[in-house]
Amino acid sequence: MRAEIVSIGTELLLGDVTNSNAAFLARELASLGIDLYFITCVGDNPTRLEETLQKAFARSDLVITTGGLGPTSDDITREVIASAFGRPLKRDEKAEEMIRDFFARRDREMPEENLKQATLPEGAEPLFNETGTAPGFFLEVDGGKIFSLPGVPPEMKMMFRKKVRPKLIETQSGREIIHSRVLRIFGIGESEVENRLREVIAGQTNPTVAPLAGRGEVQVRITCKEVNKDLASEKIAQVAREISAILGNYIYGEDEDTLEGVMAVLLSQGGWTLAIAESCTGGLVGSRITDIPGASEFFRGSIVAYNDEIKRGVLGVREETLKEHGAVSEETALEMARGTRKICQSDIGVGLTGIAGPGGGTPQKPVGTVSFALVAPEKEFSMTRLLGSRRKDNKWRAGHHALDLVRRYLLNILDD
Amino acid sequence: MRAEIVSIGTELLLGDVTNSNAAFLARELASLGIDLYFITCVGDNPTRLEETLQKAFARSDLVITTGGLGPTSDDITREVIASAFGRPLKRDEKAEEMIRDFFARRDREMPEENLKQATLPEGAEPLFNETGTAPGFFLEVDGGKIFSLPGVPPEMKMMFRKKVRPKLIETQSGREIIHSRVLRIFGIGESEVENRLREVIAGQTNPTVAPLAGRGEVQVRITCKEVNKDLASEKIAQVAREISAILGNYIYGEDEDTLEGVMAVLLSQGGWTLAIAESCTGGLVGSRITDIPGASEFFRGSIVAYNDEIKRGVLGVREETLKEHGAVSEETALEMARGTRKICQSDIGVGLTGIAGPGGGTPQKPVGTVSFALVAPEKEFSMTRLLGSRRKDNKWRAGHHALDLVRRYLLNILDD
Repeated sequence: MRAEIVSIGTELLLGDVTNSNAAFLARELASLGIDLYFITCVGDNPTRLEETLQKAFARSDLVITTGGLGPTSDDITREVIASAFGRPLKRDEKAEEMIRDFFARRDREMPEENLKQATLPEGAEPLFNETGTAPGFFLEVDGGKIFSLPGVPPEMKMMFRKKVRPKLIETQSGREIIHSRVLRIFGIGESEVENRLREVIAGQTNPTVAPLAGRGEVQVRITCKEVNKDLASEKIAQVAREISAILGNYIYGEDEDTLEGVMAVLLSQGGWTLAIAESCTGGLVGSRITDIPGASEFFRGSIVAYNDEIKRGVLGVREETLKEHGAVSEETALEMARGTRKICQSDIGVGLTGIAGPGGGTPQKPVGTVSFALVAPEKEFSMTRLLGSRRKDNKWRAGHHALDLVRRYLLNILDD
Repeated sequence: MRAEIVSIGTELLLGDVTNSNAAFLARELASLGIDLYFITCVGDNPTRLEETLQKAFARSDLVITTGGLGPTSDDITREVIASAFGRPLKRDEKAEEMIRDFFARRDREMPEENLKQATLPEGAEPLFNETGTAPGFFLEVDGGKIFSLPGVPPEMKMMFRKKVRPKLIETQSGREIIHSRVLRIFGIGESEVENRLREVIAGQTNPTVAPLAGRGEVQVRITCKEVNKDLASEKIAQVAREISAILGNYIYGEDEDTLEGVMAVLLSQGGWTLAIAESCTGGLVGSRITDIPGASEFFRGSIVAYNDEIKRGVLGVREETLKEHGAVSEETALEMARGTRKICQSDIGVGLTGIAGPGGGTPQKPVGTVSFALVAPEKEFSMTRLLGSRRKDNKWRAGHHALDLVRRYLLNILDD
């Protein structure tokens, strides 16, 4: 199947938005073994959009559009598809119900404009939008398939996964599909990973092995092209075992795993509870932990002590410690960890304190210096790391270190 | 001038890479008043690339390509442009010198493959690459312009700024340039904004006015096409005033402003200090506030009370309040706000508590219910909002409400 993505919206042509939707869809199509040949971005202009859609439809069997399904007057995807393929717009009852439901569930009055979203090209099947007002739709014309999805990324992704993907899987059965697995690595850099895996990478053609820099971490992608899913999984598993033997516990997870998610599973399995005391991350560690549904099972809370009085007054860090070692020190981090563990009555306490930048650095403790501590029954551990120069990156990377400390403690490899 | 971007590389069609290059170029072209009508991504396939380039050249005066200039066999941009426009490849002495220089400056031997990068379509002018081996090039064919730039983002950006932009500015002098301003709005939805602005939108052609859904907020873009920059600014300011008169304090900022940033400026100006007590957001509010450099000036900290014991034990929420009104209630939010204000010794305390989902909802308090409170000298305020169904979105939107409460308090419009 030859596929093509048409991304619609003047904001893309003004550079206000990066086309992350297309990258997501490209990955999904690749994983289904569907060849994607073109991605075209076009603005909210009926003539150029119609030209683009007709061209796409002429050379591809599958066209996925994103954007232009909103209620406002510059949302023209429905109209243009209707005109390009001679399928006049009609009010669709199911679509209307979806939209009315959306507002009803939120106890809000439906503005009249939103009814526009319930008109679809004749013969189109509406696709349910769980999180927004714009229904998507699926249309078949002369055997070619068109999926029209909203442009808001979470709405688009959810709709693709729940409505589009199942339809595409049906059409792909019996063909060569790309299977892949990503190993997620924390604690060593990309070139070190590449160095250690040099022989594995060189020795492989199917699956292939490719390291990739992720956000604060490294990823290794193993990709295999096979008709048979089980055979592909076996081949990938074999290579994953080889890599695992080399990288060991630097590998914290796979595919959609996150460091917080992996840590959460370990905490739940062991029945542990956790509390954080954070300074330079400002609440980011707690926020990442609570991105996990059900985090209240194991997460007690976080004391964000953004100044020394709170470190002292709330967490009980001693005046002398702050004076002697400074707010950014392993000693302070340890007392913060002990403090939050006690206050929040958790099994494990983690403290971190550092200089996120751009200001606040000194020759002894430059921007990016962060001290970490973990306190648990019969265990205290601390360390200091020098991260980078960018504030937000430093917060994120410090979060990675803090979460990984807990993972390593629970795996009993903290001192490795 | 009608422009078009052609992004070249199979990695784009596999979704391994998001097309940030195109977004960068789009912004740059917009700022130069050059109309960008299409962005096309195509893989490392000679037939499809040639088709795409010819199509682009036929309908546009300016084509910018990125990618495919490397030394390996799948880098085919030079060859395909040569063939598409009948300009056979020739070794270019200046290009060769650039590449040899690149390796010499790094004390490295030049691999033979890299010499391939010194062959350019006949008549092309090489463009110096400061940070990589691939020279770009500029080619004029029948009055149309083609710029071929490398795909590595920092190399591409540097080359655009230093080599391409100056050439484009020359051709644009005396022409219309696009100027724009974005108004950022919180507290009313996109269709309500469009409703209220209906007349302004309909009445405008230059500047144009377009509402856009942002993350948890709405944006209105005012765009003006003018030769004269001052005139453009004046026209935009006039429309901004009209919109301001209609939307009033729902407008919290402009362009790159963030709600946390606007709040931070107001806090700093008034010499106020702030502390947060958060539950369902898990630390996100504190984290967003501390994304701002220098936040320690006004931000004391946040107590992330992810269970009732911490709400009681640390924040001093009363047992009866929790029993009578529940953890998610304005009463609890108020006591949380009072508690954090007292503990952190801040002027303003904000408390929020809610059900982020997916679990924990009840018929009375469904997923998405969040209560907020603000406590300040001689002022206590609380409210409850029903947000959506997605956990992460709910956290973000709750954060927006909390930050906006502070903004409204400081502007003295909390009760409007």
